[in-house]
Amino acid sequence: MAKWCFGIDLGGTTVKCALFQTDGTVEEKWEIVTRTENNGEAILPDIAATILAKIEEKKIDKAEVAGVGIGVPGPVEETGEIPCAVNLHWGRKNIEKELGDLTGLAVKAGNDANVAALGEMWKGGGQGAKNLILVTLGTGVGGGIIVNEKIVTGAHGAGGEIGHAFVNPAETKACNCGNKGCLEQYASATGIARLAKEALESETEDSVLRTVKNISAKSVFDAYKEGDVLAGKIVDKFAAYLGNALAVFACVSDPDVFVIGGGVSKAGQVLIDAVEKYYKAHAFTASKETPIKLATLGNDAGIYGAAKLILSKDN
Amino acid sequence: MAKWCFGIDLGGTTVKCALFQTDGTVEEKWEIVTRTENNGEAILPDIAATILAKIEEKKIDKAEVAGVGIGVPGPVEETGEIPCAVNLHWGRKNIEKELGDLTGLAVKAGNDANVAALGEMWKGGGQGAKNLILVTLGTGVGGGIIVNEKIVTGAHGAGGEIGHAFVNPAETKACNCGNKGCLEQYASATGIARLAKEALESETEDSVLRTVKNISAKSVFDAYKEGDVLAGKIVDKFAAYLGNALAVFACVSDPDVFVIGGGVSKAGQVLIDAVEKYYKAHAFTASKETPIKLATLGNDAGIYGAAKLILSKDN
Repeated sequence: MAKWCFGIDLGGTTVKCALFQTDGTVEEKWEIVTRTENNGEAILPDIAATILAKIEEKKIDKAEVAGVGIGVPGPVEETGEIPCAVNLHWGRKNIEKELGDLTGLAVKAGNDANVAALGEMWKGGGQGAKNLILVTLGTGVGGGIIVNEKIVTGAHGAGGEIGHAFVNPAETKACNCGNKGCLEQYASATGIARLAKEALESETEDSVLRTVKNISAKSVFDAYKEGDVLAGKIVDKFAAYLGNALAVFACVSDPDVFVIGGGVSKAGQVLIDAVEKYYKAHAFTASKETPIKLATLGNDAGIYGAAKLILSKDN
Repeated sequence: MAKWCFGIDLGGTTVKCALFQTDGTVEEKWEIVTRTENNGEAILPDIAATILAKIEEKKIDKAEVAGVGIGVPGPVEETGEIPCAVNLHWGRKNIEKELGDLTGLAVKAGNDANVAALGEMWKGGGQGAKNLILVTLGTGVGGGIIVNEKIVTGAHGAGGEIGHAFVNPAETKACNCGNKGCLEQYASATGIARLAKEALESETEDSVLRTVKNISAKSVFDAYKEGDVLAGKIVDKFAAYLGNALAVFACVSDPDVFVIGGGVSKAGQVLIDAVEKYYKAHAFTASKETPIKLATLGNDAGIYGAAKLILSKDN
């Protein structure tokens, strides 16, 4: 009977690591540097070494370790192979096999955004749900879809790529992905800052935002909380794009709950309230009352989800 | 080892029935009337009787029957219960238990649109796919989402309710569901006829459609095939709504294939070509080449899907 497992969140600059008890209690968390030089050839050996050192240090019987779950920044195929991970300087790699051989432990890999969704379902804002959509509002907009407690990877690893949902036929500027009118262009931190700049140019009214040097999503939400009318218009525009998009997503997978995470979500309940107004107006009857909640695990969603990944055989 | 199973497609006027070999070969197809009087109390006994009579007639050993799959016009919960089925005059009913008790066979029930998606995946336009989105363009717009060969029912039975995806914030008329701007308002047979009437009023150019008394989706596509310019504009508008919506759906579940069925799809490849133009323009890079295919099973999708439902334990 396994007592332990490891949850690894592999990012472009650091690797977040955690030793878990199988009930989800974190025994210890630590980080190591991600060494991306030489096509990232040291990354997996470094992770294996830190895991084996922790097993040694804690005098853990390897037979009591369920395995290692790992979230990676890129698509992961059902075979455990990744076709590429740009931020790690990796080409095609069978990460499950390689890390398994290096550690002698079972390894299960998943895309980092999907893994975070699993984490929020297990121990975060979506606790108790079996069907969940995680929306991560950061520099970009990421997402993860969980159906019946399992990650929706999709046919091309693009399940949950909701930041690139087409929401505005009138857009003239290109998204980083090359398309025009992606949700990410309005609902990410960058997108909200852009909406703000456009509003300051097109509107004439006074606003505290006119005194801010580098307008960020945070400055918009801060001004909104202080009752700034122009900030309210910007938040409303953001909320319309996101709330309406969530209503469409609900027609596909009909989740128990939406969970909103990422840096922008630090704005808190006012963000949820703004988005919910549009969601409720446009969601299909059966899904109108689906709650929209804040993520609660922050940067730890990845390690929790990775641990859950290896603990749920089917994912 | 089971050799046989039954696939039942329960509709508001007729019940389509089929006896299948477990490899998917149809041994026999027949229909009975759906008797909806007295709150539809005769419906399940009628279905049980016709199944038991067929077993008797064919001298089948009941031990060799895997069971009965049944598609019903309404949401089906994971317990096999349906909260209501308006067209059958049913309130809450545990159809799996009731029909199971009446037949002495294992019964598995699913929503009819979802079950049709399973049928098209098994033996129709989506053969070989594990992840599929079926779009049914009929009087309304229905859908079914398959992820890893399983139906996505959703938390409120609204998985695949893609006809009610919000696609037009400028809409002033209400959809049958009460919302405004649902996909169904533009991509159903009714929706296309409406787009045509609006085009005939707002545009001044000549068109064969001006001579048609009751404009239908068929008359629009027929005129389009003959090169009618105004019909082309109507088809283009329909195709933009549907193609753009498919691009959003792909960001959620990233299917191997889209399958388009229902009466409107009889327009054939020209419809697919028109929709594909918008899909390719707005789908996320990884999903841009996802094929859009015509359904091939027609009215038989339901019986095939129902049979598959009972043959796949997990659905």
